[in-house]
Amino acid sequence: MKQKAINGWVKTISVPTPSLQNNTADAERVLAALKPALATGNVSIDLDLLRILPGLIRTAGNEFNCVLSCRNDHWTVIDMAPVSDPAPVGAAIDLGTSRVVLQLVNLVSGDVLAESSFDNPQYTIGPDILARIHYAAEPGGLAALQALIVDSLNGELAGLCQSCGFEPDAVLLTAVAGNTAMTHLFMGLDPQWIIREPYIPVVNRPDLLKAADLGLKLNPRTRVFIFPNIGSYFGGDLIAGILYAGLHNQEETSIMVDVGTNAEVVLGNRNWLIACAGAAGPALEGGVTKMGMLAGPGVIDQVQRVPGSTKLRVSTIDDLPPVGICGSGVIDLAAALFMSGRLDIRGKLVPEKCAGRIRYEAELAHFVLVNGEDSGTGRDLTISQADLDSLIRSKAAMYTILETISQSVGTALSDLASFYVAGTFGSFINPRAAISIGMLPDLPLTAYQSLGNSSLGGTIHYLKHAACLAEIDSIRDSITYLELNVNQDFMNRFSAAKFLPHTNAGLFPSVVREES
Amino acid sequence: MKQKAINGWVKTISVPTPSLQNNTADAERVLAALKPALATGNVSIDLDLLRILPGLIRTAGNEFNCVLSCRNDHWTVIDMAPVSDPAPVGAAIDLGTSRVVLQLVNLVSGDVLAESSFDNPQYTIGPDILARIHYAAEPGGLAALQALIVDSLNGELAGLCQSCGFEPDAVLLTAVAGNTAMTHLFMGLDPQWIIREPYIPVVNRPDLLKAADLGLKLNPRTRVFIFPNIGSYFGGDLIAGILYAGLHNQEETSIMVDVGTNAEVVLGNRNWLIACAGAAGPALEGGVTKMGMLAGPGVIDQVQRVPGSTKLRVSTIDDLPPVGICGSGVIDLAAALFMSGRLDIRGKLVPEKCAGRIRYEAELAHFVLVNGEDSGTGRDLTISQADLDSLIRSKAAMYTILETISQSVGTALSDLASFYVAGTFGSFINPRAAISIGMLPDLPLTAYQSLGNSSLGGTIHYLKHAACLAEIDSIRDSITYLELNVNQDFMNRFSAAKFLPHTNAGLFPSVVREES
Repeated sequence: MKQKAINGWVKTISVPTPSLQNNTADAERVLAALKPALATGNVSIDLDLLRILPGLIRTAGNEFNCVLSCRNDHWTVIDMAPVSDPAPVGAAIDLGTSRVVLQLVNLVSGDVLAESSFDNPQYTIGPDILARIHYAAEPGGLAALQALIVDSLNGELAGLCQSCGFEPDAVLLTAVAGNTAMTHLFMGLDPQWIIREPYIPVVNRPDLLKAADLGLKLNPRTRVFIFPNIGSYFGGDLIAGILYAGLHNQEETSIMVDVGTNAEVVLGNRNWLIACAGAAGPALEGGVTKMGMLAGPGVIDQVQRVPGSTKLRVSTIDDLPPVGICGSGVIDLAAALFMSGRLDIRGKLVPEKCAGRIRYEAELAHFVLVNGEDSGTGRDLTISQADLDSLIRSKAAMYTILETISQSVGTALSDLASFYVAGTFGSFINPRAAISIGMLPDLPLTAYQSLGNSSLGGTIHYLKHAACLAEIDSIRDSITYLELNVNQDFMNRFSAAKFLPHTNAGLFPSVVREES
Repeated sequence: MKQKAINGWVKTISVPTPSLQNNTADAERVLAALKPALATGNVSIDLDLLRILPGLIRTAGNEFNCVLSCRNDHWTVIDMAPVSDPAPVGAAIDLGTSRVVLQLVNLVSGDVLAESSFDNPQYTIGPDILARIHYAAEPGGLAALQALIVDSLNGELAGLCQSCGFEPDAVLLTAVAGNTAMTHLFMGLDPQWIIREPYIPVVNRPDLLKAADLGLKLNPRTRVFIFPNIGSYFGGDLIAGILYAGLHNQEETSIMVDVGTNAEVVLGNRNWLIACAGAAGPALEGGVTKMGMLAGPGVIDQVQRVPGSTKLRVSTIDDLPPVGICGSGVIDLAAALFMSGRLDIRGKLVPEKCAGRIRYEAELAHFVLVNGEDSGTGRDLTISQADLDSLIRSKAAMYTILETISQSVGTALSDLASFYVAGTFGSFINPRAAISIGMLPDLPLTAYQSLGNSSLGGTIHYLKHAACLAEIDSIRDSITYLELNVNQDFMNRFSAAKFLPHTNAGLFPSVVREES
């Protein structure tokens, strides 16, 4: 996350004029000029660039910006242009299962030039990755899924370039991060073994690819870097996130949590990294990210207690009359109800404390958050005991995962220096509320840092810092993947975490209820 | 030249079945299995191969032949097939200015499967390379020249494959050697700066290329290795020749001479290599390789003296009545005439010794080799004093080059362990005759070794020995290129070499004329 001076993929060189004394080939004179900038002689020049090189270096002066790519310690010059030409461009792509986000970056200055996002068009095949993987196994299915994402990327990239006033062939480097299944579909690789025991991707560490080989309509010389995965459940989006957070560079132990389609956790420091994901995720997914509705106009994203009152104040997106509630709002609400004694330590509504705001439907208690006359729908906005039970399971699963991974390396959650929360979850969640219900550990609020889209952040980082290539390999190679076994220990911890904030209240000293 | 056991580009591996304990990706399990065979982990798998990999390793057993390519210390798996499948194939191509020669090789056994050759179709644009380079500078010219050679290679390769009973996509590796201009035209690289001072190729060391990027219709995964050049006048065909001769591996100093379109000489041993080419070539080209006619049916390729007689016995190709004489025949004839006193030490015909076989046309003496009644044309076959003068200039140029290069490193020609003669010149020339006229140094005949098509030999060597990649780079990097300056010293040596066998007869102790 820390801003560094850009030391990226563009190197400026001066190409010496040939003479009878220095009559090495054009290519070799360019490579010799690059050698000091790269500290290696392991460089070659793209064939298509060789085809225009003699004319270029004889007509366009001596000073050039070279755009390079690198893989396996070998560099390739993919573009050369006079330093006076417009800067070359990179495209950063976060390939999400639901949403795809793109940014264009000036490869010389590192400035972000434009951003856009769109719904993953594979959604029409199946909203979740499982449905898509099954579809990929049908005849023509994989090709259709690949075409969907590639075509929409082509359209989006063309539009973004046009908005910046250049052609798509100005884009010379592309960095892509996504979960393992998404990157497989993007590369046209058969994903079916990802979801069958023993859960095997086709590839962990994709080679550097040519955009044209993937069907991307950029420069024929454009290279595409795809962040490596660790396995079926731990994708390149997470590696990109770790790179972006800088977890792997810090002396103190920190944790990163990403709740997207899946819940993934990475714990570590500059000496070691341990990660887990997935197995305990469904409760969390079904709870936090799917409960209520997605964030949108009129959706309640924050709930606060009015000091000295039992009243609750809701905030909605765009300040419109409330029409529903999203995940962060549910966590806020549960925290507010618990802290004021209207939810007991088992997460059950306490009718006698709710002062007429309880309503029963088919014997199921509902808490009325907003009355019909104040809502944007004309109907009461409520949260049911079933919704709350689901939240309790989710928060217990989350805390259990955090506890399990930290106990596996002998670290106490209370010792963590930083707690990075990635993604939409991280952007909207109120750590104070999440601590109150025991979803997140009781750390000082200053330890919590929201990363935003850390997967996109990692791809941007790649485009700006050539040296991070080695870091990415090192992150991938150093991560220990912890298989979460849902065994008796895990279930015991899960049961203990199903209380508010926890069976062991001593773990949450800052959570003190007004009324208990 | 020495046969080694094949240790080539095909490695046999056993791919472990995935399990929950070893759940790395398919690609990574293949790469791990390859690591011991390659002694490096720097390997990746071609994207197109990744696309079929999961099915392959789950349906075709565990034992596979992997075809690899390598460049810059990074290996790429380009094909995998069950060991029971037919062996993968390599194509070796000698890209000559006049003639192109191809062989198909079994990449597992190293056996040559088929060979063919065809006239370089760029001949229709210009018989010599200069005309083609000028044509390449015209609009569309370069593309047309490239298409000519690529199209004819495609046709020839398809035919050769058909004759062997497989499809062109069985060809997975291709090795190409040619002079610098020819390889530039093959790659579609602008050759115009090759012939303009300071004589600069576009590239010395081409990258490993995909056949498809060159327009070759082989397997989409086929890689093409193009032998590197040292400069405009010293091409990859010569590097291939050195590799084939093994000059760079020998303790004793040897020399290799290749007279093709150009005359090129390499001198050296395992510690150093020095080369020169071109500048003194035209006389030799015009003389030895173009005098008379090209070898063909009825052409005199050998002339021998009948012992104890002044009669000459001619041998013709296919034993047909003689219709002309080719280079090796001219050298034999000149040697026979000189050894029998019919040519003086200046190379002039001695009429009084020629016993009625001299005829004058426009005051120019002609020696009648075959009478009209014995020839295949019905006319006398003669050689004129002008032809002989041209031969003398050629042989003097050749000897001067050999002397100049060996003197430059303080080696006496008489100290050479081996004298390799490459190409058609080497296949047909009679070293004894060439020594007699002072064209080649007076070494024991056992020192002379004919290499045949050493450029093709080098490409075959590449296909059979993966380790030679480092040797090729090392040959290229270690050669000192000697610019032949036609200065006073050179001219003095040239003048001295214009006598038969030489002004300093002490250099040729074995040449003792019957009559002097």
